[in-house]
Amino acid sequence: MIIGVDLGGTFIKAGLVDNGRILRKIAKPTEAEKGKQRVIRNVLDCIAELQSDKVESVGIGSPGQIDHTKGVVLNSSNLQISNVNFPGIILQELNLPAKIDNDANCFALGEFLHGAGEGARNMVGITMGTGIGSGVIIDCRLYTGRNAAAELGHTVIKHNGEMCACGRKGHLEAYTGTRGIQKLFGKKLSPEDIFKLAAKRNKNALKTWDSVGNYLGVGIANAIHTYDPDVVVIGGSVAKAWRFFSKSMMKTVNELSLLPKTKIVKASLADAGVIGAASL
Amino acid sequence: MIIGVDLGGTFIKAGLVDNGRILRKIAKPTEAEKGKQRVIRNVLDCIAELQSDKVESVGIGSPGQIDHTKGVVLNSSNLQISNVNFPGIILQELNLPAKIDNDANCFALGEFLHGAGEGARNMVGITMGTGIGSGVIIDCRLYTGRNAAAELGHTVIKHNGEMCACGRKGHLEAYTGTRGIQKLFGKKLSPEDIFKLAAKRNKNALKTWDSVGNYLGVGIANAIHTYDPDVVVIGGSVAKAWRFFSKSMMKTVNELSLLPKTKIVKASLADAGVIGAASL
Repeated sequence: MIIGVDLGGTFIKAGLVDNGRILRKIAKPTEAEKGKQRVIRNVLDCIAELQSDKVESVGIGSPGQIDHTKGVVLNSSNLQISNVNFPGIILQELNLPAKIDNDANCFALGEFLHGAGEGARNMVGITMGTGIGSGVIIDCRLYTGRNAAAELGHTVIKHNGEMCACGRKGHLEAYTGTRGIQKLFGKKLSPEDIFKLAAKRNKNALKTWDSVGNYLGVGIANAIHTYDPDVVVIGGSVAKAWRFFSKSMMKTVNELSLLPKTKIVKASLADAGVIGAASL
Repeated sequence: MIIGVDLGGTFIKAGLVDNGRILRKIAKPTEAEKGKQRVIRNVLDCIAELQSDKVESVGIGSPGQIDHTKGVVLNSSNLQISNVNFPGIILQELNLPAKIDNDANCFALGEFLHGAGEGARNMVGITMGTGIGSGVIIDCRLYTGRNAAAELGHTVIKHNGEMCACGRKGHLEAYTGTRGIQKLFGKKLSPEDIFKLAAKRNKNALKTWDSVGNYLGVGIANAIHTYDPDVVVIGGSVAKAWRFFSKSMMKTVNELSLLPKTKIVKASLADAGVIGAASL
């Protein structure tokens, strides 16, 4: 059995995973505001809680760019855990071997192996949350390039367009990440609240999701033109609004794509990140 | 020895290739305006002229999308050769086994194996001509996705921007393909002529290449954020203007890229397409 950890900005989710199935699951606040050492402590506590003789190893999905040779988090704008060597710390403190990858990569791997991407050879996974994360499977394996392939959130879809959290303009994330959605809505409500308003047929909320789908469609069409994948899987907390943005998303993809129709589906696992981390 | 054929819109170039070196090279007008049968005839004539007992097989680089399972050109907007099965025809007429791939893929493969991409593991190749072609090498092999991966020319860099030849808006090709360059220049001169004017320090021409570099930089930054390659290689006839567009291109890439600096270089082979076709 393997312990999978999904290190999020708000919660750490960890699961005892056996061949893609979560046998036991726990969650703890990340407490990012209390600093790097506290975050490390909380991750270790989660793992220790699930540890037993049957656990062989640990996989961690972390925000930010990962140095795959060193197993170190290079930087993460949402979580101050730069230069943390989780595999080294886990081995030292808990005597368990550990692997680490980007959280969106873990999401993609989880969905590919046990979720909506099953059976594909090449797959693009996109997570919608505070930011737009993505991971890509090529020839049935996670593709990472030198280190950080598939940063689709930071591809330009509108040259000189809206400002992204990273400080560059026109990125996909600037239109479809939480801040982008708030800007489209015109008020600083959470995507969750804008979703609830849409469910009540609020016109501005419905129009906002329609626009989000349109911009997301541009990004997906670009991903199709770069990877020509068998399937694109969309997940993350904001994908909950699927029924409000998927129509305009599909329309835009169909308008922009020159290639044969590509399958675009909603993620099917509740904890793809945990399962993917355990599958690293 | 292998015969490599680069089927272009104006010329067919063919070479007798031995381990990446061209021993003999010929060129014939494509005569696309005389129809599909004439183009096929001209390709066969080129191959026949180079054929000998020492030739084992043929590789063809063709414009358009290729159906890799059937070896058929699906469609090509610049050349009317839809549904032509070159491998089948070459086997029947000349008794030689043949392979086919997209011309930009052949360019990328040639530069990867014997040119500016040598030693890389992952590489993006971009050809600048009438259109913007591209090919990508992943894990030392051409990556084609389902069929047509790396259509970077048709990725959106400016949502709702300039019209592309394909009928969609805001594509990289709409700013950096021949038509795009002409639009930026404001007159229907050939890129070659705009290059010559720049060499004479014509201000509008210099400004045009500066803009081309800027837009190309957006496309390259996107390619870096999707593939995180070891190197990006730029070729094609329009790359001749490298010294006029490379500065703004590099500047834009550096501004937009979140990743460690990526090598971006000019193609080093005169006939990467022929050599790559022979290496399929």
